[in-house]
Amino acid sequence: MPLTDAQRAEIEAHARESASTRRPTVTALEEMLFRAFPVLDHGFVRVVDYMGDDSAVVQAARVSYGRGTRKVSEDAGLIRYLMRHRHSTPFEMCEIKFHIKLPIFIARQWIRHRTANVNEYSARYSILDREFYLPSPEHMAVQSASNRQGRGGILDPAAAEDVLRLLRDDAIRCYDTYESLLDTDAGPGLARELARMNLTLNTYTQWYWKVDLHNLMHFLSLRIDPHAQYEIRAYAEVMLDILRAWVPVTAAAFTEYRVGAVTFSASMLSVLRRMLAGEAVTQAESGLSRREWDEFQASLNG
Amino acid sequence: MPLTDAQRAEIEAHARESASTRRPTVTALEEMLFRAFPVLDHGFVRVVDYMGDDSAVVQAARVSYGRGTRKVSEDAGLIRYLMRHRHSTPFEMCEIKFHIKLPIFIARQWIRHRTANVNEYSARYSILDREFYLPSPEHMAVQSASNRQGRGGILDPAAAEDVLRLLRDDAIRCYDTYESLLDTDAGPGLARELARMNLTLNTYTQWYWKVDLHNLMHFLSLRIDPHAQYEIRAYAEVMLDILRAWVPVTAAAFTEYRVGAVTFSASMLSVLRRMLAGEAVTQAESGLSRREWDEFQASLNG
Amino acid sequence: MPLTDAQRAEIEAHARESASTRRPTVTALEEMLFRAFPVLDHGFVRVVDYMGDDSAVVQAARVSYGRGTRKVSEDAGLIRYLMRHRHSTPFEMCEIKFHIKLPIFIARQWIRHRTANVNEYSARYSILDREFYLPSPEHMAVQSASNRQGRGGILDPAAAEDVLRLLRDDAIRCYDTYESLLDTDAGPGLARELARMNLTLNTYTQWYWKVDLHNLMHFLSLRIDPHAQYEIRAYAEVMLDILRAWVPVTAAAFTEYRVGAVTFSASMLSVLRRMLAGEAVTQAESGLSRREWDEFQASLNG
Amino acid sequence: MPLTDAQRAEIEAHARESASTRRPTVTALEEMLFRAFPVLDHGFVRVVDYMGDDSAVVQAARVSYGRGTRKVSEDAGLIRYLMRHRHSTPFEMCEIKFHIKLPIFIARQWIRHRTANVNEYSARYSILDREFYLPSPEHMAVQSASNRQGRGGILDPAAAEDVLRLLRDDAIRCYDTYESLLDTDAGPGLARELARMNLTLNTYTQWYWKVDLHNLMHFLSLRIDPHAQYEIRAYAEVMLDILRAWVPVTAAAFTEYRVGAVTFSASMLSVLRRMLAGEAVTQAESGLSRREWDEFQASLNG
Repeated sequence: MPLTDAQRAEIEAHARESASTRRPTVTALEEMLFRAFPVLDHGFVRVVDYMGDDSAVVQAARVSYGRGTRKVSEDAGLIRYLMRHRHSTPFEMCEIKFHIKLPIFIARQWIRHRTANVNEYSARYSILDREFYLPSPEHMAVQSASNRQGRGGILDPAAAEDVLRLLRDDAIRCYDTYESLLDTDAGPGLARELARMNLTLNTYTQWYWKVDLHNLMHFLSLRIDPHAQYEIRAYAEVMLDILRAWVPVTAAAFTEYRVGAVTFSASMLSVLRRMLAGEAVTQAESGLSRREWDEFQASLNG
Repeated sequence: MPLTDAQRAEIEAHARESASTRRPTVTALEEMLFRAFPVLDHGFVRVVDYMGDDSAVVQAARVSYGRGTRKVSEDAGLIRYLMRHRHSTPFEMCEIKFHIKLPIFIARQWIRHRTANVNEYSARYSILDREFYLPSPEHMAVQSASNRQGRGGILDPAAAEDVLRLLRDDAIRCYDTYESLLDTDAGPGLARELARMNLTLNTYTQWYWKVDLHNLMHFLSLRIDPHAQYEIRAYAEVMLDILRAWVPVTAAAFTEYRVGAVTFSASMLSVLRRMLAGEAVTQAESGLSRREWDEFQASLNG
Repeated sequence: MPLTDAQRAEIEAHARESASTRRPTVTALEEMLFRAFPVLDHGFVRVVDYMGDDSAVVQAARVSYGRGTRKVSEDAGLIRYLMRHRHSTPFEMCEIKFHIKLPIFIARQWIRHRTANVNEYSARYSILDREFYLPSPEHMAVQSASNRQGRGGILDPAAAEDVLRLLRDDAIRCYDTYESLLDTDAGPGLARELARMNLTLNTYTQWYWKVDLHNLMHFLSLRIDPHAQYEIRAYAEVMLDILRAWVPVTAAAFTEYRVGAVTFSASMLSVLRRMLAGEAVTQAESGLSRREWDEFQASLNG
Repeated sequence: MPLTDAQRAEIEAHARESASTRRPTVTALEEMLFRAFPVLDHGFVRVVDYMGDDSAVVQAARVSYGRGTRKVSEDAGLIRYLMRHRHSTPFEMCEIKFHIKLPIFIARQWIRHRTANVNEYSARYSILDREFYLPSPEHMAVQSASNRQGRGGILDPAAAEDVLRLLRDDAIRCYDTYESLLDTDAGPGLARELARMNLTLNTYTQWYWKVDLHNLMHFLSLRIDPHAQYEIRAYAEVMLDILRAWVPVTAAAFTEYRVGAVTFSASMLSVLRRMLAGEAVTQAESGLSRREWDEFQASLNG
């Protein structure tokens, strides 16, 4: 359970406030505002603020004096055109701010996306909570044999149970040490910036993360990919739902032209043309490597 | 006069819309929203959208579950602390979006600030208006003798009159040619992306410009400086007023710790210490160059 | 002719210097170093410095202690893999620095690529040369009827002659005025930062432009596209040749997986599958808009 | 000891290679190239490549055709001017690439500097070494009473001994578990991307980190500050020595105008003026808060 009663009360107090604004407002997103959507065992994603909507994309693309919108179909057509031709600047005109709780080893992957604003909870300044990520059995998998950075089959229940126990024991023991190092009575009262080094990488941290719509979609396109690590994909999936509520037209174009799209290399394209002309091309005749051939087949078969 | 009746009507229609929101809302800025604040002879600055307020800075610095604010004085103290110690990330948590009309040669200076999002009116796609910047007589100055990139004294009225006429005539002539090049009946119907090359650099362009609060202050600190070119400073001054309406506590700290602050070099600091100890230091004894000595004196004398 | 004798002498003096280094060095690029490759009528591209080579990409991807390279085929395979799967960070480990002379209206397009370092010749500080871009007849085209931001057919010779005369006359007249405004004897000695506003947008400027290999390829992929404006494409083509000399393996992968590749949307992909299954799909049955259908056909037909 | 024999041999093989280049070359830095400068107990900093030197800053500021340098004193004067007036773009024209080994909790601080290129050793793909940071006794300090994110006094030897033992035991135990989780014979052969979550935050990681000269100095100015955490300051100090070897003129200006400089707020400046006029100002009369008064006094007293 990701929230304490005190936290829940704080969120609810905030959510009760309301004001009148002349800014673009999205009803579906207003309803989601501040709510903690659970991810993994202790993490969450909350939308804390947003700027703009689908029509703000249109307005910026047209550099309008007013709302800048025309017929609904025309606006949707423009958004689809911008997405298809990778005109990214109009999508940069919307912005969203999240409060996210996530394990440190996932935070380390996430932070590699540099075009975002971040304020992380500081363990130099404050004390982290006793919370660490423990994968559920269906996500505990062996190292993939074919993909050096991926997972293979699921562990059998007994092995998963063992792994879980090892992870939990080490995390607890490290956190206990952390607490005793910080202790100013019974312990040495070690500086926080030092004591934190004893925590394990599955300890939860949290941050405010603010990003524009273009860079959010770039993040999502990489992180909802089946090759992304499951633990970050779990966050991306929740955020994709939020995207759909916030900017439904943009989200539909994103699904059509990015998530569901496939890029064929020059060589794949030439194989494709031979196939469409009726030729039965084999890997050997294709000029593609075995690996690329497999990727090509996977794309064609869906 | 920067706006046509049609533009004014578009803006007013947009401004009449209103909705209820749970997001942080700033009454003083809501009242300014969409309004075109005139700058130079045909330019303007309009706020089109914004995200966050003073307390959003505090909220992010504290990575809060709720609004994150405490006593007013405590929040102001935190904002002053963050500004003084150049903790910039909490200020990145607010965002503002402007619609700006400005001469092209100023747009070329402005765009050098890379950490912003921009959608410019495209002269490949559309036709620019017949509007060009003509400086008023009190801003027409000779090349500075001492500062290779600055202005010296004001031109005498007759000379200013001559300059104005030359600038106006060339701009009009070039725009007339531009129009005739584009003309598909009487003229060749030249492609827009080519015809635009005939315009002069004082022609007005416009763009949507979106930036976070930290980078806005960085822009302002450079562009309200007396060494900045007058024409961009005119925009910065209007935007500083908007900053004060939007985030008054942050704006006060910005004035105190950035705009009104002075940085002394290591050598200046050591001269200062000798002066405070009662020594009457001359430039010759200071170890400072003549130029640095003058800058130092100017800082001390205010 | 883009260079004066004095400039040529400066370049040659620089090019004669030579030193021994332990850094990765690329012979083919060393030979190109400092040379001005002409572009358009007065522009050029010069490589002024570079960091890294193909094996620096491999070295960074492997976070090596030494050179990090293995068999040539293995290294090429890794580079192809990184390109195919858009692992961009290893390509960011190489850097190149250009000196470029280009018309201002093209500089305005170019500068929109924000992830680069730029030092432009300052017209606040210095006086621009009397040089402006005048398109050659084969590049003078009418506005496209189908594409609002493109060119249609070429002007007939007489019309092109007229356009050329108009462009040349206006540019010369504006430059004459610029000079007379700056004149401190016969003219008012107007500040440079003001006088420059009278120049036309085809006046040449120049800058140092430094970019990493990943962002250079991103720039090139957008600007060698047939939809890019011819005048910027002319620069991109020269730079693509430089890329091939500098990092031949990366450049080959770039051609295979980016320049020569095609992205099909989710709907196009499903049409493709029907076609491969033997169905003769028409636009009406495809679910694609007329415009997308045409793009789809164009991709398939090459 | 940070290097194995195999790593040392790899580095030495790389260092023996040498070529002739026409690029700017810095003898003092060439001699440092590839060498691992030790930091903390197992970390290091190595320069792997660089682009440019002091004169490249000058060359870019002047947008030169040749080397762009004049008299040594004139070039130094220009560099000092650029530094004093925060003209940052000419400094962006030099670039340096490091290979750095550092504890993960320091890597997490470091990565917050977003304007750099990074390739980190991937624990999804590879197995991390059994190496963790253990502070030496003189760096083990209690939590500061006055500064919520700093250290106070040093632990007494017995307490330091205890802390050390706790840190070491937990790190070893967690690493043992990590290894057994990865084990495909005796253990479950858990996926690497999962097993790594069991490591403690003092485990060493490594990365290639590439940055331009301007952003390197920004990083250094923040991280050699006495308020920076000791462990990252240790890296910054080694890198400052490298800076001095690479660009001695720029490094001297950096020391004078950035590291050794002090910024006074508007209120401090007005107190300073009263003091220089002979007034004996007390905190009570100064208008400064106690905390700001203390900072002010500290600056004046050096």
